[in-house]
Amino acid sequence: MASESDFPIPETNVLAVASHVVYGYVGNTMATFVMQSLGCEVAALNTVQFSNHLGYGQAKGTRATASEVTDLYQGLQDSYLDSFDMMLSGYLPGAASVEAVGAIARSLKLKAVMNPGGFFWVLDPVMGDNGKLYVAEDVVPAYKKLIMDADLILPNQFEAETLSGVKIVDIESLKLAITTLHEQYRIPHILITSISLPTPGASEFLSVVGSSATTSSKPRMFSVRIPAINCFFSGTGDMFAALMLVRLREAVNNVPGLKDEASWVSNDEVTATELPLAKACEKVLASMHAVLTKTKERRDEELEDYRKKTETLGTGVGDEDEKKLRLAKSKAAEVRLVRNVRALRDPIVEFMAENV
Amino acid sequence: MASESDFPIPETNVLAVASHVVYGYVGNTMATFVMQSLGCEVAALNTVQFSNHLGYGQAKGTRATASEVTDLYQGLQDSYLDSFDMMLSGYLPGAASVEAVGAIARSLKLKAVMNPGGFFWVLDPVMGDNGKLYVAEDVVPAYKKLIMDADLILPNQFEAETLSGVKIVDIESLKLAITTLHEQYRIPHILITSISLPTPGASEFLSVVGSSATTSSKPRMFSVRIPAINCFFSGTGDMFAALMLVRLREAVNNVPGLKDEASWVSNDEVTATELPLAKACEKVLASMHAVLTKTKERRDEELEDYRKKTETLGTGVGDEDEKKLRLAKSKAAEVRLVRNVRALRDPIVEFMAENV
Repeated sequence: MASESDFPIPETNVLAVASHVVYGYVGNTMATFVMQSLGCEVAALNTVQFSNHLGYGQAKGTRATASEVTDLYQGLQDSYLDSFDMMLSGYLPGAASVEAVGAIARSLKLKAVMNPGGFFWVLDPVMGDNGKLYVAEDVVPAYKKLIMDADLILPNQFEAETLSGVKIVDIESLKLAITTLHEQYRIPHILITSISLPTPGASEFLSVVGSSATTSSKPRMFSVRIPAINCFFSGTGDMFAALMLVRLREAVNNVPGLKDEASWVSNDEVTATELPLAKACEKVLASMHAVLTKTKERRDEELEDYRKKTETLGTGVGDEDEKKLRLAKSKAAEVRLVRNVRALRDPIVEFMAENV
Repeated sequence: MASESDFPIPETNVLAVASHVVYGYVGNTMATFVMQSLGCEVAALNTVQFSNHLGYGQAKGTRATASEVTDLYQGLQDSYLDSFDMMLSGYLPGAASVEAVGAIARSLKLKAVMNPGGFFWVLDPVMGDNGKLYVAEDVVPAYKKLIMDADLILPNQFEAETLSGVKIVDIESLKLAITTLHEQYRIPHILITSISLPTPGASEFLSVVGSSATTSSKPRMFSVRIPAINCFFSGTGDMFAALMLVRLREAVNNVPGLKDEASWVSNDEVTATELPLAKACEKVLASMHAVLTKTKERRDEELEDYRKKTETLGTGVGDEDEKKLRLAKSKAAEVRLVRNVRALRDPIVEFMAENV
């Protein structure tokens, strides 16, 4: 009936702490389905419940307070439901929530202290993008305090700059930022999503740059370049994080003994492009490229239909119509997740990790 | 990459209104994954967020107020995200929430008024079980007011009795209860889950009894009997509802023109066991029997491990140990959903609908 070979990894219990939206796919709404469809048991602790993501420019809903987050976790502990192999944390609505989630991670880390590799925390330090913070300023020091407990962090370029204090303008400064995060914050694995350096032809490609530290906290850097899709999608960071969690565990399981090493750090002999982090990243980007290509096709069709409909109705000008078009664009760009599950499960790797 | 034949139904947008638990599978946590894995786009509006289901005897968390529920739906409307083909509603934390969800359903029904069959509401009137209410008393009249807007209701025996005012003790009174719901409340489709009548050998089987009304509101009754599994599982009602939603749509799609009929009611010539409701029910119960059989096996293994562990440690007596055992039993009986997704997708029908 069910077959274990349906899934890339053995049963894995994941605590996922992020936002929930009723419509569309961001935060836990994205991450939960991605991880479940790859065979994880996911406990989704929702930090907010909004009607939709903020790309629409408007939303209704409520945020959980930090004490509500702590309380939910206490509920799990009370009933001995706090046995997790991995944790994924995403958007948190303020510094107090960041601290609350840090406390949860430390509690889980402590439980696994006699069991190296028994708990692994993937942290997406959601703070801002393109040079701008979109969280309160006190969230930054809150993250700086807790990232040293994370096993893998997934900042974008701006977040990597904010955490490391290094402005990334070329390969040298990129290397310095990653080295700082490995050495100063003792973070074993780092992936910087969407690096853009002023190089020729860069706009047609997206680069993800990763590194797993050696025993002496030196970086082992690789990059994977994929063709850029000319469209803004929400939730892709959450999709990346959820897929990375699964594919990293898979790649680690393929190396005898590695899952029993603290933070799953490979021997110093393993080169950058041979790292499980690099192997995982290749699969993740293959899945994402396939799903987003499909999404872009469907988006374009949907917007073409919308354009035809408004033309027929003779509408399409004026402020109200502008707003409707903007909302229709956001809706059309929602990631087509559920019906592209095969692309999550069976990625066809085309873009390979390269040394930086 | 993705293939439409992966799914039993074309893309279907479902609004699911029910509870969310961080750990385990009840309410939306159950229903969302079930429907997503069968290809539905699910908008999950969570009426509560608890750490775990109440079968553990304890939980932490918060309930959404009725106005928060209404507000979230308003958020969807504001951004034109309220195009749903179907709605599934489950546990609601009070009479005001029941009314709020009724208003949402009526709004969606109204949108589809020029498009017969364009909106279908599956309502699980969660009120109680085994002769006892577990909601506030004012929830009962609130449900009585709104069930006439539902297309399919899924009461258990006690809830069917409460709604119809007919005590079910034999086939005749069962028929009267269903007739009352068809005639008085104008509910087109009814499924009574877990009927227990004092008949020989009944305890070894569970019966589900269903009916779709004729044009003159007469019942067409069938039953499906499945072997009982001697264990209490939480969330099975939500699993049943979510599977029914998908499989009914599938069965209706297989009958030319039926999906464009109001409430998908079959011609009067269609007999009880030929109803799409009956065909759907056969598949649903096949999936459930397979998943719950697997769950029971894993539960027994887990409890055996627990027993061995406590014996080795020399614990197992005293109030604290009693409580731990009770919690371990609840945890062990959580439905094994994610890794048995194949049983959801490819049910092997063994138990057929029979005339009542």
